[in-house]
Amino acid sequence: MDHVRVGLVGLGTVGTGVYKMLQENKDIITKKVGKEIRVEKILVRNKDKERDPEIPSELITFDPGDILENDDIDIVIEVMGSVELAMDYIKRALSAKKQVITANKDLIALHEEELSELAHLNGRDLYFEASVAGGIPIIGTLKEDLAGNKIRKIMGIINGTTNYILTKMTKEGKSYEEVLKDAVALGYAESDPTADVEGLDAARKIAILGTIAFDTKITFNDVYVEGITKITKDDIKYADELGYIVKLLGIGMNVDDKAEARVHPVFISKDHPLAAVNDVFNAIFVEGNAVGETMFYGRGAGELPTASAVIGDLMKATRDFINDTMGSSYRKIVKRKEIKDISEVDTAFYTRMKVKDIPGVFAKIATVFGDHGVSIALVRQQYRDDSGVAEIVLVTHKVQEKNVRDSLAAIEKLDVVEKVTSVIRVEEGKR
Amino acid sequence: MDHVRVGLVGLGTVGTGVYKMLQENKDIITKKVGKEIRVEKILVRNKDKERDPEIPSELITFDPGDILENDDIDIVIEVMGSVELAMDYIKRALSAKKQVITANKDLIALHEEELSELAHLNGRDLYFEASVAGGIPIIGTLKEDLAGNKIRKIMGIINGTTNYILTKMTKEGKSYEEVLKDAVALGYAESDPTADVEGLDAARKIAILGTIAFDTKITFNDVYVEGITKITKDDIKYADELGYIVKLLGIGMNVDDKAEARVHPVFISKDHPLAAVNDVFNAIFVEGNAVGETMFYGRGAGELPTASAVIGDLMKATRDFINDTMGSSYRKIVKRKEIKDISEVDTAFYTRMKVKDIPGVFAKIATVFGDHGVSIALVRQQYRDDSGVAEIVLVTHKVQEKNVRDSLAAIEKLDVVEKVTSVIRVEEGKR
Repeated sequence: MDHVRVGLVGLGTVGTGVYKMLQENKDIITKKVGKEIRVEKILVRNKDKERDPEIPSELITFDPGDILENDDIDIVIEVMGSVELAMDYIKRALSAKKQVITANKDLIALHEEELSELAHLNGRDLYFEASVAGGIPIIGTLKEDLAGNKIRKIMGIINGTTNYILTKMTKEGKSYEEVLKDAVALGYAESDPTADVEGLDAARKIAILGTIAFDTKITFNDVYVEGITKITKDDIKYADELGYIVKLLGIGMNVDDKAEARVHPVFISKDHPLAAVNDVFNAIFVEGNAVGETMFYGRGAGELPTASAVIGDLMKATRDFINDTMGSSYRKIVKRKEIKDISEVDTAFYTRMKVKDIPGVFAKIATVFGDHGVSIALVRQQYRDDSGVAEIVLVTHKVQEKNVRDSLAAIEKLDVVEKVTSVIRVEEGKR
Repeated sequence: MDHVRVGLVGLGTVGTGVYKMLQENKDIITKKVGKEIRVEKILVRNKDKERDPEIPSELITFDPGDILENDDIDIVIEVMGSVELAMDYIKRALSAKKQVITANKDLIALHEEELSELAHLNGRDLYFEASVAGGIPIIGTLKEDLAGNKIRKIMGIINGTTNYILTKMTKEGKSYEEVLKDAVALGYAESDPTADVEGLDAARKIAILGTIAFDTKITFNDVYVEGITKITKDDIKYADELGYIVKLLGIGMNVDDKAEARVHPVFISKDHPLAAVNDVFNAIFVEGNAVGETMFYGRGAGELPTASAVIGDLMKATRDFINDTMGSSYRKIVKRKEIKDISEVDTAFYTRMKVKDIPGVFAKIATVFGDHGVSIALVRQQYRDDSGVAEIVLVTHKVQEKNVRDSLAAIEKLDVVEKVTSVIRVEEGKR
C-alpha cells in the first residue's frame, strides 16, 4: 500500500481540527513518516448536523463497522468522546488489529489499563497524548525523553477554565461568582461548569499523568478532589500579602513507593514557575531524580492544539505500522503503588477564622494546634471589624493532614471561635 | 545477549552522572527497555586523574579501539567534548555499526548533518538530546511529539550564565562588571567567560534547534551573534519602565521558507512566559501552526540533568537495537532553507542617545528615521543632566534591520547628537 489508511471516529471540534491539519501539513508529515497518511472514512452520528465544507462528504459514514471492522483501515482515531460507546468502539478496533489513537480523557482516566492490555494482546498500540492538555506533549515526554528518571512529583495547572477564573479574581479583585458569570458569557466556561470548577476535569488528567509518571494504575476514582467554588476575594488578598498566588493544581507524588493523587486549590509561592501561568494556559511541573525541576507550558485545549497531540501520536503509530514494530509501546505494571488517603498526606495549610476580639483567644487556638502536633509558621490578627469580631489568619508548617483536620474540628468547638472561614493547602513554600 | 553493552567515552562531570544514574535507576530502566543496560568500558585520557570511587576501575580503558572497534560493545556514548577528536571517535563508532549518543554541542552545531548521514549509511542512529539544554527534552519533543507541526518560531533562554548575570543586574540594580565578578567567584561563570557572555554557546544551541525545528541545516557559522557585555544598568532600568525585561535569547524563525538564526540581547515584554525565567534556568519557547505557543522550562546544564537527556536517548537507541529497527531516526533534508542576513530581519528596536538639550533636536532625529521608513512607537526625553545634554529613549515599530542601522548611522552624524549609547532589539511586544 502506498499510503496509510485512517478511520476518524467523531467529527466535532477535535476531529475537524485533525482532518484540517493533516491536509495543511501533509508535506512535512508525509516526508517524516515516509508515506502519506490519508483519512479514508469518518464516522459521524448525526446525519443532519452541518459540517465544515472542507470535509469531503464521500468520506462520511454512519456505520461504525465501516471503520472498526474494515480491513482497508489501518489506524483508528477516536475523537467522539463519551465513555461507554467509545470504550466499545476502541475495543472493537483493537480486536480488529487497528492501531488506535484517542483523545478521550474520561475514558482513559477510567480504563487505560484494560485498553492498553487489549492493545498488547492484539500486538497493537493505544496512544492517548491528546487526553491531557493537548498543547503540552507531556505523555510522550514522560514515556520517552524522561523515561530514565524516577519521577517524584508531577503537578500542574491542567484546567483552563478554573485558571482563567482564578487569574481574573487575582488581577481584578472580583468574586468567584462575578468572574464565573463573565466566563460563561465569554465562552470560557460551560453553562454547567461543574466538571471544571469542582475539579473533576483536572482529576481525570492527574489520574492519567500519575499513571504514566509513576508507572502504576491511578484512576479518576482514586483522586481526592476539591474545586474552587469556595475561594473568596479575601483568600486571594491574603495570599497576595503572604507572597502566594491561589491556583487549582492537580498533584501527583511518589514517595516511598506510595502515590498521592489529588486536585485542590493551593497557595503557591509567587516565585514558583507555575505562579506565572495565567488565563486559560496550562502548565505541568515535573520533578525527576535526574532531570531535576522541569516545566511544560502550553494551551490545554482547543481544536488545533489537541489536533497537534493527535497527529504526533498518529505519526508514532504510523511509523510502528510501517516498520512492523507495533505493540512496542506497552508497559506492564509490575508493582502497583498504594494510593494514600488524603488524611495521610503531608502539607502545610493556610486557614482563616473569625474569633471573639478578647485577650487570650490565640493562646487557646495555638494550644489546640500544639496538642495535635501542628506547628504554626505564621499568624496575623490584624484585620478587625468593629463588631467585636477579630480575624486570625494562620499558616502551619507541613504536617499530616489528619492532624490539621482534627485541630480545626476542635477549634471550631471553642467558645471563642465563631467560624473557620477558609482552609487552603500551601503547596510550595518560598524558594 | 541478555544485556545491552555500552561503551562510555569520557568520564568528566556528565560521564560520571550518566554512570551513576544508570546504577541508581537501573530497575526502571531495565523494566522499560526490556533488558539491562550495562556499561562495559569507559575510555579516559588522563591516567592519573582522580575518579569517583563509585566507578569500578576494571571498566577503565585508555585505548579508544577497546570501545569504538570492539564487537562486544553495542552502543557508544560520547561525553568527552572537543570537536576534532570526538568527530573522529564518533565516525569510527558509527562505521563499526554502533548506535551513538553524544552530548557534544560544539561538534553537533558544526557537523550534525555529516554525522547523521554516516549513521544512516551504516543503518544506525545518532542521538544528541544532551547537546542542548540537558534538563529540557526539546529535541525529542520536536522530532516526535510536535512532528506534525510547521514550526514558525523557536526562541529561548539557552545559556544559564548570561541569564544568571542579567537576572542579578535586573533584581539588584548592579552593573554587568560587578555581577560578572560575583558570578565567576561563585562558579556560575568560567574564569574566561567569553563563550557564554559573547553568545557563542547560545549560538551553537540555536543552530542545533533551528536545524531540527525547521528541518534544514543551520550551523554555528550561520548564526548572527551579539553578547551581553554592552548591557548597562540604565538599559535595564529603561526596560523596566517601559514594561520589558532584558534577556539574551537564541532565536530561530521560519518565515516564507527562509530561516533566521540569531543570538542577541532583547527587550521582551514582562508578560511573556520567557520573562519569568530567572537565574541559571533555561526555557525554550516554540510556536507551531497546530500546537500554538508552548514553552519548555528546566535546567540547562549540570551533571544529572544532562545525564537525564543522555539516558533518555540511550533508552531510545537501545529499544531500536533490541527491536532491530536501528536507523529509523534519520531525517534527510529535502529542501535547504536560505538563511537571512541579519540586515534583512524584521524587528523593533530600543535605542538611547545623548543629544544637545536644545529645541528641535527630536524633529531632526525623527526626520532621519522617517526618511529611512522607520516608524517610531514611543519616545521619552525625560532624563536630563545639568550639562546641557539630554537623553532620548526611543522604541521603533517593527522594520527591516537595515533601515534602522542606516538611520542610526545618519543620526550619529547629526551635529545635535553626541552619541548613540544603546541599540537593543525588542523581540515581543505587549501581549
